[in-house]
Amino acid sequence: MSDVITVHVPTPSRTYDVIVGSGILDSLGDRVASTCHPDAVLVVTDSNVGPLYLQRVVTSLEKAGLRTATLTIPAGEQYKRLVTFGAILEAAAQASLTRDGVIVALGGGVVGDMAGFAAASYMRGIEVVQVPTTLLAMVDSSVGGKTAIDLESGKNLVGAFLQPSLVLADVACLATLQPDVFVDGIGEIVKHGILADAKLFDELAEHPLTQYSDASYLARIVARNVEIKRDVVSTDEKERGLRQTLNLGHTIGHAVEAASGFTLGHGHCVAIGLCCVARAAEALGWAEDGLSSRIESCITAQGLPIDTTIASDDIIKYATHDKKRHGDVVNLVIPSTIGGVGIRLVSLDDFRHIVCLGCGVTR
Amino acid sequence: MSDVITVHVPTPSRTYDVIVGSGILDSLGDRVASTCHPDAVLVVTDSNVGPLYLQRVVTSLEKAGLRTATLTIPAGEQYKRLVTFGAILEAAAQASLTRDGVIVALGGGVVGDMAGFAAASYMRGIEVVQVPTTLLAMVDSSVGGKTAIDLESGKNLVGAFLQPSLVLADVACLATLQPDVFVDGIGEIVKHGILADAKLFDELAEHPLTQYSDASYLARIVARNVEIKRDVVSTDEKERGLRQTLNLGHTIGHAVEAASGFTLGHGHCVAIGLCCVARAAEALGWAEDGLSSRIESCITAQGLPIDTTIASDDIIKYATHDKKRHGDVVNLVIPSTIGGVGIRLVSLDDFRHIVCLGCGVTR
Repeated sequence: MSDVITVHVPTPSRTYDVIVGSGILDSLGDRVASTCHPDAVLVVTDSNVGPLYLQRVVTSLEKAGLRTATLTIPAGEQYKRLVTFGAILEAAAQASLTRDGVIVALGGGVVGDMAGFAAASYMRGIEVVQVPTTLLAMVDSSVGGKTAIDLESGKNLVGAFLQPSLVLADVACLATLQPDVFVDGIGEIVKHGILADAKLFDELAEHPLTQYSDASYLARIVARNVEIKRDVVSTDEKERGLRQTLNLGHTIGHAVEAASGFTLGHGHCVAIGLCCVARAAEALGWAEDGLSSRIESCITAQGLPIDTTIASDDIIKYATHDKKRHGDVVNLVIPSTIGGVGIRLVSLDDFRHIVCLGCGVTR
Repeated sequence: MSDVITVHVPTPSRTYDVIVGSGILDSLGDRVASTCHPDAVLVVTDSNVGPLYLQRVVTSLEKAGLRTATLTIPAGEQYKRLVTFGAILEAAAQASLTRDGVIVALGGGVVGDMAGFAAASYMRGIEVVQVPTTLLAMVDSSVGGKTAIDLESGKNLVGAFLQPSLVLADVACLATLQPDVFVDGIGEIVKHGILADAKLFDELAEHPLTQYSDASYLARIVARNVEIKRDVVSTDEKERGLRQTLNLGHTIGHAVEAASGFTLGHGHCVAIGLCCVARAAEALGWAEDGLSSRIESCITAQGLPIDTTIASDDIIKYATHDKKRHGDVVNLVIPSTIGGVGIRLVSLDDFRHIVCLGCGVTR
């Protein structure tokens, strides 16, 4: 087991630790017992992750003296729906979880989102422990307390804010990911570099991350990303101001994701969104010269796409249905330098212009 | 229009007004507009209430310049389920509600619970306005922010705390209730009297409430009950301490309700629970002499039942599955005088003894 890094996350509703290390999965039971003192635990995982790690997690919890039940849901975003949410809730009731119970989310973002929303809703709120197994979940979705499910009408339209009581990120789990799933997590890492850490950004531009990178290095990168997100969500838990900056690249990214019929990974779409908004910002004189080519180089080095062939009209159509919209304006996060961003309220006309300037323009 | 009474409810998460009066339904639009400033409104009602009041509510909202959509769900507790919750959420999305939207719950407790939970979850939380049309909803469920839906595994197992932004209780709506539905609301009113207001209790013992009582009198009774509940939830929004006293009569009452297959109304079951726990408390020397017969007289005067023929074993079985239970003890609210209650943690054995002492013992 390599060194373990603990990132302390204080938020208005709850303060918790994110534990990052390699080979630390077996310590989960003791950590859950001493942090949450639950009377029972429901572990929720999916059909990809369960066969790999569920038995180890259950063994660890039971060794710590915790009564443990499990539920394995089918893997995939298409199951992030009300019917699966209901199945988790019924499983919690069948396992006789009381208000002192805990749900452990073992998996990627979909498992974390659904198990988190179920924990937020079961008996009007019990504790959740996040055990992210993908890079995207480790550096982004497991931290900060956003949970969600999809409706027929759109993605992530329903959910709750529920900070986890504990996050345990074992970077050894990254070795079993499909390579494109691993790479997908890098989109948010580049975003964090642009938002808040020029040194991290430069490091990424120089050295492509791989799932076989040195475990201590991977743990350090994950922990640094958690710190960056922590610094934002600690001051703005419910996304009333600063937290909106985490949407850098996401307005266009989400629209590309939707327009692709969700065949393109979230991180790939964020990478495209980061490049598109940077190109437009530079063209409009809102960003320093050369910013967009620096971002493009970094993203290319990491094996992610920098543009899309999806028509601008489609991007505009999907983006203007986004839930971040208030009335006839779009809240857009604009990068001005590496390490410097701002939020602009732009009209729908200006937004159309930005999409046309930034998207589908590279050779 | 009679005088309008405003009860101000401050809670940690939100401060709001409960407006009580007769014939005030048409003022809803202006009040919603000035309180919430929504960009759009979804009115949720059910198939009983919709034909009576939906058009007036929509007209009032539209006159106030608010874009308004409606959804009528089937009436009945059996529809307080995930599938109806999903229908409300899809309707909100179809009506293009943004984070600035409002859901108006027009109806009794079931509508208020489901529309409230939908508002708590849609885009991780928008505002809800409660327009209770039953006595039970006016004096209890519309105030305090508890929302819930049922699972296959049990009632109210899923939900959220979401304080309404406004509650508008038009006592003129009480005239259209089925008589047994009106009377059902009196169970919680008697409970409030026992908890906190000996004068209210004595008044109830002397004068049976009816849905044709003087409108000003009904409005005063409703407003007084809202004040009593307000005084509790303001200091303990999330039911960590004092708010548990509102469960007086409910541990046994819920069990009777479940054991009856939910054929007996909630308020009827609470009335039974109040008498059962009072008889047991008096027999155990925890309550002053004569308390149980005073409570029985009051409840009889109001046309509600004071005991059950359901077997004690069944009551015990359902009660020990209640979500208020923590481990092997039951949190039981015990009345000692009119206006004085306490909370006792009793063992399961002691709880069985209490049920045997209090339930099924009257001729």
